[in-house]
Amino acid sequence: MKFCSTCGANVALSIPEGDNRERFVCTNNSCATIHYQNPRIITGCLPIYEDKVLLCKRAIEPCYGKWTLPAGFMENGESTEEGAARESREEANANLQIEHLYTLFNLPHINQVYFFYKAQLTDLSFCAGEESLDVKLFSQEEIPWDNLAFTVVERTLEHYFSDNQQNTFPLRNETMQKSLFMSK
Amino acid sequence: MKFCSTCGANVALSIPEGDNRERFVCTNNSCATIHYQNPRIITGCLPIYEDKVLLCKRAIEPCYGKWTLPAGFMENGESTEEGAARESREEANANLQIEHLYTLFNLPHINQVYFFYKAQLTDLSFCAGEESLDVKLFSQEEIPWDNLAFTVVERTLEHYFSDNQQNTFPLRNETMQKSLFMSK
Repeated sequence: MKFCSTCGANVALSIPEGDNRERFVCTNNSCATIHYQNPRIITGCLPIYEDKVLLCKRAIEPCYGKWTLPAGFMENGESTEEGAARESREEANANLQIEHLYTLFNLPHINQVYFFYKAQLTDLSFCAGEESLDVKLFSQEEIPWDNLAFTVVERTLEHYFSDNQQNTFPLRNETMQKSLFMSK
Repeated sequence: MKFCSTCGANVALSIPEGDNRERFVCTNNSCATIHYQNPRIITGCLPIYEDKVLLCKRAIEPCYGKWTLPAGFMENGESTEEGAARESREEANANLQIEHLYTLFNLPHINQVYFFYKAQLTDLSFCAGEESLDVKLFSQEEIPWDNLAFTVVERTLEHYFSDNQQNTFPLRNETMQKSLFMSK
């Protein structure tokens, strides 16, 4: 950030009065807007049909060609559930019934918070959206573990197949210091 | 937003290629930065000591003089738990042990998501921070229901005293269309 989005003057890092962190502050005294920067939310679904989970093969970077759960940046004006359902429609044309929040990951090193809602597919009419090359249902044995896009997706799938043995799905709230991207 | 924070040129609302929403886009073709705007997270605690809950009397607007749970905007570089503990230290000098995420509110009309973590005070050395006039423990009968600052605080307290009768505290994930501010 170099310029004030309110008045166009230069910004400079300084600690505003009453604050304890450096912020980008407008250097034009008649504006002096403080530009806060905050983490962003990525929201998505774990879509389930019988004993299978729906994954999308990415048609965009990063991780082109790798498999992921449908998810994306939460938009202004929607709830985390609405965002999760919207991303599932956009990426997989999936019709689903959201059950509850299942995994919640903090990735403080990249200022992101991930929400995955457990959801039931209500029909099998899904198909690849613009950002997907393919959309498929996978049983536990079929999951392409070596070809997943993101560590938060791997972790959500690991929790799901483990929790599925007890048929209880408590909220899994974790902070991940490792990369969002799979190292494989 | 009127100016590009990257290059200082004017921005204009338009739908970027491959997108389906209007964004502020830099009109300088050699920059053309797309400025996404996303919801912000407010994170805080429900600090508990025996049968009482800790509330802070606000020393700042909005809602100067009203009672609230310690909470504030999540910062870059921290997790939602870390932010909740930080706000509890800043507003109430409270030492606490976070237990688990308890209430999660979407307020899509103001582009905010609230997290409240259930937490146990580990000692009674709390005292008002700079943003508080007073900090006190309240039993259920003592809660100043008519003098609370925010609807998300009222709702969290309602859930807590109700759930406390069964001594089970499942995640309460709700979307609130009503004002953040109490109407009383």
